[in-house]
Amino acid sequence: MEKKLRRSARLVDMTQHLLEHPYRLIPLTTFAEEYGSAKSSISEDLSIIKELFEHKGVGMLKTVAGAAGGVRYIPLLKKQAAVGIVEEICTKLEQSDRLLPGGYLYMSDILGEPETLNRIGRIMATLFAERDIDYVMTVETKGIPLAHATANYLNVPVVIVRRDTKVTEGSVVSINYVSGSSKRIQTMSLARRVLPEQSKVLIIDDFMKAGGTARGMIDLLKEFKAEVVGIGVLVETSDVEERLVDDYISLGKITQLDLKDKEIKLELGNFLSKI
Amino acid sequence: MEKKLRRSARLVDMTQHLLEHPYRLIPLTTFAEEYGSAKSSISEDLSIIKELFEHKGVGMLKTVAGAAGGVRYIPLLKKQAAVGIVEEICTKLEQSDRLLPGGYLYMSDILGEPETLNRIGRIMATLFAERDIDYVMTVETKGIPLAHATANYLNVPVVIVRRDTKVTEGSVVSINYVSGSSKRIQTMSLARRVLPEQSKVLIIDDFMKAGGTARGMIDLLKEFKAEVVGIGVLVETSDVEERLVDDYISLGKITQLDLKDKEIKLELGNFLSKI
Repeated sequence: MEKKLRRSARLVDMTQHLLEHPYRLIPLTTFAEEYGSAKSSISEDLSIIKELFEHKGVGMLKTVAGAAGGVRYIPLLKKQAAVGIVEEICTKLEQSDRLLPGGYLYMSDILGEPETLNRIGRIMATLFAERDIDYVMTVETKGIPLAHATANYLNVPVVIVRRDTKVTEGSVVSINYVSGSSKRIQTMSLARRVLPEQSKVLIIDDFMKAGGTARGMIDLLKEFKAEVVGIGVLVETSDVEERLVDDYISLGKITQLDLKDKEIKLELGNFLSKI
Repeated sequence: MEKKLRRSARLVDMTQHLLEHPYRLIPLTTFAEEYGSAKSSISEDLSIIKELFEHKGVGMLKTVAGAAGGVRYIPLLKKQAAVGIVEEICTKLEQSDRLLPGGYLYMSDILGEPETLNRIGRIMATLFAERDIDYVMTVETKGIPLAHATANYLNVPVVIVRRDTKVTEGSVVSINYVSGSSKRIQTMSLARRVLPEQSKVLIIDDFMKAGGTARGMIDLLKEFKAEVVGIGVLVETSDVEERLVDDYISLGKITQLDLKDKEIKLELGNFLSKI
């Protein structure tokens, strides 16, 4: 930047820079050089941003001291805001015309709206903020927008598991898995080059019934010597005889799904105890 | 907010609020009431943000006067920045190990990185900023992250066309189309309830060879009485005898793809003349 920036302009620029690069460590010298300001001024700016971010529940600014230090923005949502958002989504999902054959819920509209997706992604990022995550993984198709919304706040890449093997991505690893609810044998594949071995992976999906798909992803990840650091789903169902995965976080939970009377009831999922 | 905010804190909060809600008209009274400030102070704040956004190439703030007025943030990228980003992506795509059977390029890593996706999405949003867009549409699977990254900056929903008909979304409209390069007949479907009739739709995809898939989406949209307001693709190929669509914007263009010598060459697509 050719001219020295005033504090007001610096604050606007630093805010947008931090928001655009979550989880990235930004050395204070980067800002100081960019604006031609003293590091002490930059520190004061950051404390103003930090206070506002915490006050408004936008997230945290973590300062790392020392020569290799800097500041890092961690997107976080307050519990109360998260509960409000999930309650609103649950209410929307209770509309009776969302009921689809097979006990599924129509959610494509919700999973298509950027602002809703961003809110859900921010909740997921808050829930898994403490985990050490290299990749977010999901299976096509409906989980993809949610996985990307989450990864966007965690600033890690997404890998997409395919449901077929005609994949134009080079050599793939395929496994068979049994869909827990339909009991049918299905195939999922992941291109070898997409995921380095030993990666730490967060699994994100839109829907979980018996958990067969999630179980399949866990088994697939074993082929990559990867570690599953968490599983997050938007909605789980409660009428499950035997759940195939046990350690997962759900935002909403379907407690009643009456195909005849077209009645759907949801309550908050198990995320409440984890936030 | 319980206390009156100082200008510095207001600037941080307004910046993050505007960035989070692109294209949304925010009445000045919303800010004035939230911060307990005079509208004149809010106007001064906005002119500071506006100047910085324009100077740094973040986008525009458009002020709408009058009782129903307010301010709207339009994400935009400067031409020079867009060219730099696309050149960087093209160079990455020229790595010889990206060549896949059938003349495809491995791009899943690039389409998985949030920061790269956001950059591409911002370029697409800049290219189509003047169009009146209700929905962004793409076909599964690889186009989805790009469509969402674009829609995120345009603040419109995404609709995803499926390649099969076992779709759990209620009644669907399916069409057959001929993939322009492989000449095979394929099917694509879109759930009826996903897209209201008469919508204005921007088509986004990752790759275009002969344009058969894009042509299929255009034909599918006719069934919804929708209007195609634009087509944007990340990469097109140049070795095409007959292109099935003519009005589209590409960011990159493959000019050489030698399977034997494993050589790939890209140049900038036709977006240069549109930005």
